[in-house]
Amino acid sequence: MRNLFLGFGAGVAVGAGGCYLYLSVVQKPYAAPRRVGRGGVELDHPALKHGVPETDIIRVYEGYVAAYDYRTRNPKWVAEHITPASWTGEANRERSEFFPDPEVDPRFGAKLSDFRGSGYDRGHMAPAANHKDSQKAMDQTFSLVNISPQAGKGFNRDYWARFERFVKELTDVAGNVYVITGPLWLPTQQQLDDAAAGGAGGAGTANGGPTSKWTLTHDWIGKPPGLVAVPTHYFKVVLADTRDDSGSNASKQPPRGNKQPLPRGAVGVGAFVMPNAPIDPRTPLSAYVVPLEDLEQVAGTSFFPALLGDARRREAADVAAAGWRAAGMSQLKPFERLNMKQAFAALPPPASSMTIDVEASSSSGRSAAEAPRPPKTPAGSGVVHICEVNACKLPPVDFFQRGSGGGGGGGGGGGSRGSSAPASPRSR
Amino acid sequence: MRNLFLGFGAGVAVGAGGCYLYLSVVQKPYAAPRRVGRGGVELDHPALKHGVPETDIIRVYEGYVAAYDYRTRNPKWVAEHITPASWTGEANRERSEFFPDPEVDPRFGAKLSDFRGSGYDRGHMAPAANHKDSQKAMDQTFSLVNISPQAGKGFNRDYWARFERFVKELTDVAGNVYVITGPLWLPTQQQLDDAAAGGAGGAGTANGGPTSKWTLTHDWIGKPPGLVAVPTHYFKVVLADTRDDSGSNASKQPPRGNKQPLPRGAVGVGAFVMPNAPIDPRTPLSAYVVPLEDLEQVAGTSFFPALLGDARRREAADVAAAGWRAAGMSQLKPFERLNMKQAFAALPPPASSMTIDVEASSSSGRSAAEAPRPPKTPAGSGVVHICEVNACKLPPVDFFQRGSGGGGGGGGGGGSRGSSAPASPRSR
Repeated sequence: MRNLFLGFGAGVAVGAGGCYLYLSVVQKPYAAPRRVGRGGVELDHPALKHGVPETDIIRVYEGYVAAYDYRTRNPKWVAEHITPASWTGEANRERSEFFPDPEVDPRFGAKLSDFRGSGYDRGHMAPAANHKDSQKAMDQTFSLVNISPQAGKGFNRDYWARFERFVKELTDVAGNVYVITGPLWLPTQQQLDDAAAGGAGGAGTANGGPTSKWTLTHDWIGKPPGLVAVPTHYFKVVLADTRDDSGSNASKQPPRGNKQPLPRGAVGVGAFVMPNAPIDPRTPLSAYVVPLEDLEQVAGTSFFPALLGDARRREAADVAAAGWRAAGMSQLKPFERLNMKQAFAALPPPASSMTIDVEASSSSGRSAAEAPRPPKTPAGSGVVHICEVNACKLPPVDFFQRGSGGGGGGGGGGGSRGSSAPASPRSR
Repeated sequence: MRNLFLGFGAGVAVGAGGCYLYLSVVQKPYAAPRRVGRGGVELDHPALKHGVPETDIIRVYEGYVAAYDYRTRNPKWVAEHITPASWTGEANRERSEFFPDPEVDPRFGAKLSDFRGSGYDRGHMAPAANHKDSQKAMDQTFSLVNISPQAGKGFNRDYWARFERFVKELTDVAGNVYVITGPLWLPTQQQLDDAAAGGAGGAGTANGGPTSKWTLTHDWIGKPPGLVAVPTHYFKVVLADTRDDSGSNASKQPPRGNKQPLPRGAVGVGAFVMPNAPIDPRTPLSAYVVPLEDLEQVAGTSFFPALLGDARRREAADVAAAGWRAAGMSQLKPFERLNMKQAFAALPPPASSMTIDVEASSSSGRSAAEAPRPPKTPAGSGVVHICEVNACKLPPVDFFQRGSGGGGGGGGGGGSRGSSAPASPRSR
């Protein structure tokens, strides 16, 4: 019997050791992982003998995850998870400093000096004020992987700040809010006269040249060869998820404003695109609603693919999005509407019937009461357009001063966000 | 004793089983692989609960590997391994057809229709003629992940085709040639007058506005929101590796032209950038030599990082590169040189002494004999600039017709490359 135990013990050791040796030495899953790309693609190919070219990096921080692009030296997307707790802590942005990310090769990242004297703010994608639950989380939002050159006055310090406020207050109606923010470069359409058309692309077509072409023009800041691209637009995709909420309101406080509660178990979805330029504070947020499908295509990015990879879910929200956009556009003055159509030509406006409604009401003023009532998100998909929650109403212009919106973090978040990069001496 | 064996046997089973269970169920390395980004970054973060945004894909084919960008709908880089055998087979491009890659979501890939009537060729990054060792390998180069809109006449069908020929003939001097090809979007510098300077970026600087700014302008083809960006330039980085060669010449044929053999054990390196536009066939290839360091920064890409991640190796080749570029530039007419300086402003020309040499010889004609002799690559790094092999001489203009360069695949490769996408009917 003693032998049985002895033998068993020795056997366990040999078996476990052999298994460990096999898995760790022969298969080497940990010691020498095979080179795989995203999605598990095998990258063992003779062409890659001297290494896989690197063009971007993903950085994981306490409060956000950022994919950073080495060519534009901008974030590609920055993903956050916001809860009522994450934006009501005591962290203070006065203690935070912008810093070049230590994991980004300095040859491929923006530098602090690139922003000095550029005329652009160092704009956060994940706002510092969303991450007040710890000083560390807030400090980390000042990594340059989270920063993009934004127009300051009238945008980063004003309209965009109110929009950020709007987004974090969605924790009033859902316990878990997910946001993805990033830059866009949208081309515009130019009419060609016959003479110019022949030259486009070096060759005319058989049936005469094209009558228009798509062109992108945007600035870069910094010094060559390491320039930083200035986006023409920014996007945010928001997802307000009630599915893990308990019965009560997520924030355990009455929701600010006249918000409609999201149906329990529903997911609110919205996609927004704004120009990187001063915006008239009276512009309704709904004018910047875009269909997620179109945004995905111009951004070249799939958002929340595990939930919204299902095309039917996107379509449900996008029907409502087209309606909200039309409603917002109808509140603009005619010349504003024309400007916006040009700036958003690559994200075509809603089609046919909706557009006709808008044109018919083109003489209306800004009163929200006159806006056509947009359609409800079609039921059954489990997805609701986020504008149904509070009619896409931004917080008031003066929310910084008044500290409106309640809560401990009310006024503090926006206080110093307007500090643009200091101007450089003439000798730059 | 029998008990000892019995116990041992049972123990092995339990130990191995336990170890297997632990590794496969508890750690789950195979059943449910953790989400990791490139470089093994953990992507388990609450912000990514609904999936990691996807912005690109890497496709591995017989003859090449391509990283494809969903925003520009262009390849980011295409890597090839070329040997004497890979480009001298019997595959025929007449049997190949362009196709949208089945693994690319159609929402994020270029379409065949995007090129029709666009005025641009469907330009291969990995040339079809490099992959004649099997029909399948050649056919695969017609996937749209390998295609970018290139100016046809004077570029894709002419100068660029001669350049591709130059690259594959490097198998004369090294048994293994590695090439990475891709698009670039290079901004140019614009002078601002005082009035305009204040408006750039929406805010002036304290000490008066900047006097110049960097701007990128380029076209897009196709239909919104899924437009395809037209690059302003293209790059190739070549690496001719002799280290695995046997004693004899790699191709076992006398090298074409007046090539110098690469020293055994040496690695030839070169980086080239050309505008996506017709190029005067007399322009010396050396005028398009660029320092690898600068190219990496404007492309936002590290090339052959396992070999050239070592900055000293890049520097060695780049000293020579600056010399070759200066030599090439000196052979241009003054207005051509000015044009090229503007088109390459984001890739600054070689500095100080070298530039002065070039300016001094600005009245010279095109004769190669008058070109200043560029410096040799500094010894000791194991890296030699590729231009030392054959003075960066392109094959003659008429190599297609003459079938020069010998070998079975001589004339065939270029025969039908000039076919641009068919023009669309007017109704597009």
